[in-house]
Amino acid sequence: MSNDLAGQVREGEVRALARAISMVENGHPAAAVLLAALFPHAGRSLVVGLTGPPGSGKSTLVDRLTARLRRDGKTVGIVAVDPSSPFSGGAILGDRIRMQAHAGDDGVFIRSLATRGHLGGLTAATGQVLTVLAASGKDVILLETVGVGQGEVEVVDAADVSLVVLGPGLGDEVQALKAGIMEIADVFVVNKADREGVDRVVAEIESMLSLGPPGGRPRPVIVKTVATEDRGVDELWAAVEAFRAEADGRGALAARRRGQLRRQLEQTLQRRLLDRAQARVLTAEELERTVDRLESRRVDPLGAAEEVIKRMGL
Amino acid sequence: MSNDLAGQVREGEVRALARAISMVENGHPAAAVLLAALFPHAGRSLVVGLTGPPGSGKSTLVDRLTARLRRDGKTVGIVAVDPSSPFSGGAILGDRIRMQAHAGDDGVFIRSLATRGHLGGLTAATGQVLTVLAASGKDVILLETVGVGQGEVEVVDAADVSLVVLGPGLGDEVQALKAGIMEIADVFVVNKADREGVDRVVAEIESMLSLGPPGGRPRPVIVKTVATEDRGVDELWAAVEAFRAEADGRGALAARRRGQLRRQLEQTLQRRLLDRAQARVLTAEELERTVDRLESRRVDPLGAAEEVIKRMGL
Repeated sequence: MSNDLAGQVREGEVRALARAISMVENGHPAAAVLLAALFPHAGRSLVVGLTGPPGSGKSTLVDRLTARLRRDGKTVGIVAVDPSSPFSGGAILGDRIRMQAHAGDDGVFIRSLATRGHLGGLTAATGQVLTVLAASGKDVILLETVGVGQGEVEVVDAADVSLVVLGPGLGDEVQALKAGIMEIADVFVVNKADREGVDRVVAEIESMLSLGPPGGRPRPVIVKTVATEDRGVDELWAAVEAFRAEADGRGALAARRRGQLRRQLEQTLQRRLLDRAQARVLTAEELERTVDRLESRRVDPLGAAEEVIKRMGL
Repeated sequence: MSNDLAGQVREGEVRALARAISMVENGHPAAAVLLAALFPHAGRSLVVGLTGPPGSGKSTLVDRLTARLRRDGKTVGIVAVDPSSPFSGGAILGDRIRMQAHAGDDGVFIRSLATRGHLGGLTAATGQVLTVLAASGKDVILLETVGVGQGEVEVVDAADVSLVVLGPGLGDEVQALKAGIMEIADVFVVNKADREGVDRVVAEIESMLSLGPPGGRPRPVIVKTVATEDRGVDELWAAVEAFRAEADGRGALAARRRGQLRRQLEQTLQRRLLDRAQARVLTAEELERTVDRLESRRVDPLGAAEEVIKRMGL
């Protein structure tokens, strides 16, 4: 059944795709077989990450980029990740609205992912959802996050090209953000560029960049857009393509993908090892007994972890 | 030597404290013994988490809360965590400035933590630094984060009481944030309450709260402050104390701490299991060989992880 589903996913069937992603998200027992069947056919999509503070207009930009790519005949997958919602577990509100904009277009597939439990789980799920979408033959996958924290950086880590989207009126924020998320930008997008304050944001980014790009990377370009009016979207896509070509040429894209695979392996391994520990030694009952001992301070977390590892025969 | 250091930490010696935290942060071989010696004496501090968007004035608020607590004769530990800076690895800029404000006061200890590598490492390190500070007898530990993503939520997860700090002019952001970080607030702080837009932010928080508090928790209170003028700080601390007393009374504080210990155990166990796998099976050389196979799509991450687990005899 899973192999059948894999075949349908590879043909890009929308309902098969939706079902496959749900299986992966929910940790369905057959998801492992499905992913193994799809993985050999993934890796050919260009994954573009978009991150930036709330209110910078990322979603509109994603819409316009999608329309732009569709005009070129390219198929598009959209993954909207919300790492900042660990408790609601709900989907992103704009999702249904956006679905309507591309309703009936089988060349566009949109999916929201929200955190269930901890971030490690989300980054792992994101990697697997990208595998499914890529195996379905999508030419471009747009990976959008809500928010600007470390979680977002880790999610966008799965991208080939990372866009940091800022708006005017966020001038103060540039300063605050610069030590962090700014460093992952391959391309800066200053959206809502028809509003006051845009020059200040551009100037702040430039002043930051003048300190030198981190890690010997090429200096990121800054593209101004007004997504609501479809202005600057062509230029933005050209900048993405230019970055891709340049990074591909000097082997940086391959190196980045290799790093992603390494991290994906380590994360998967960690999670599976914990599963194994919980199946064999640290059963639910034993876990609570251990937490009792932590609570009464008879053992510390490191000591308790070492006990479990010893009991696993390691 | 470590036991000696543990004794000095317990006496609250500033230099011993600084050295102990560095050992924990850098993963010094003796850190495990030190933490085991300190853990039985931790757990008596009140840990107050502060999170919120850049520009909301968290740092000033932390300063004023510290001054307030010092007037009561309480000792204070401050941990400023920057989960949004995975690349720079640098300390928070304001740190040295703040050090000066409390220079010469042995009752205040300030330390910044930045992400090195991945978030899991940071949350683990934060837990360990809290253990050291608590064992040193600090009455209150203020745990401040930069940014508002999932990473921040996980860091603040280590707190007994969580404050979400907002400023006016962030009205639009309330909407965007509400699905996420807003849900972790025990107390909302609207800082810079002398500025325009404060009523709108309060109204937005109230409208959000009218939908009902998540998870059957008591409705969070909203406190207005002007930290730069020391206004509202007494009221804020009263709200924190009231929350603590209420949560303690119904057993919610103990339940929260128990959950924290459980997660700390699981995270520590995961990390240690990965260390073990890398020491025994997935050596640096073997890791690269496996990544080669992932790159050429001969195996998928799940399959590769299962191979490693099998070779570990599990």
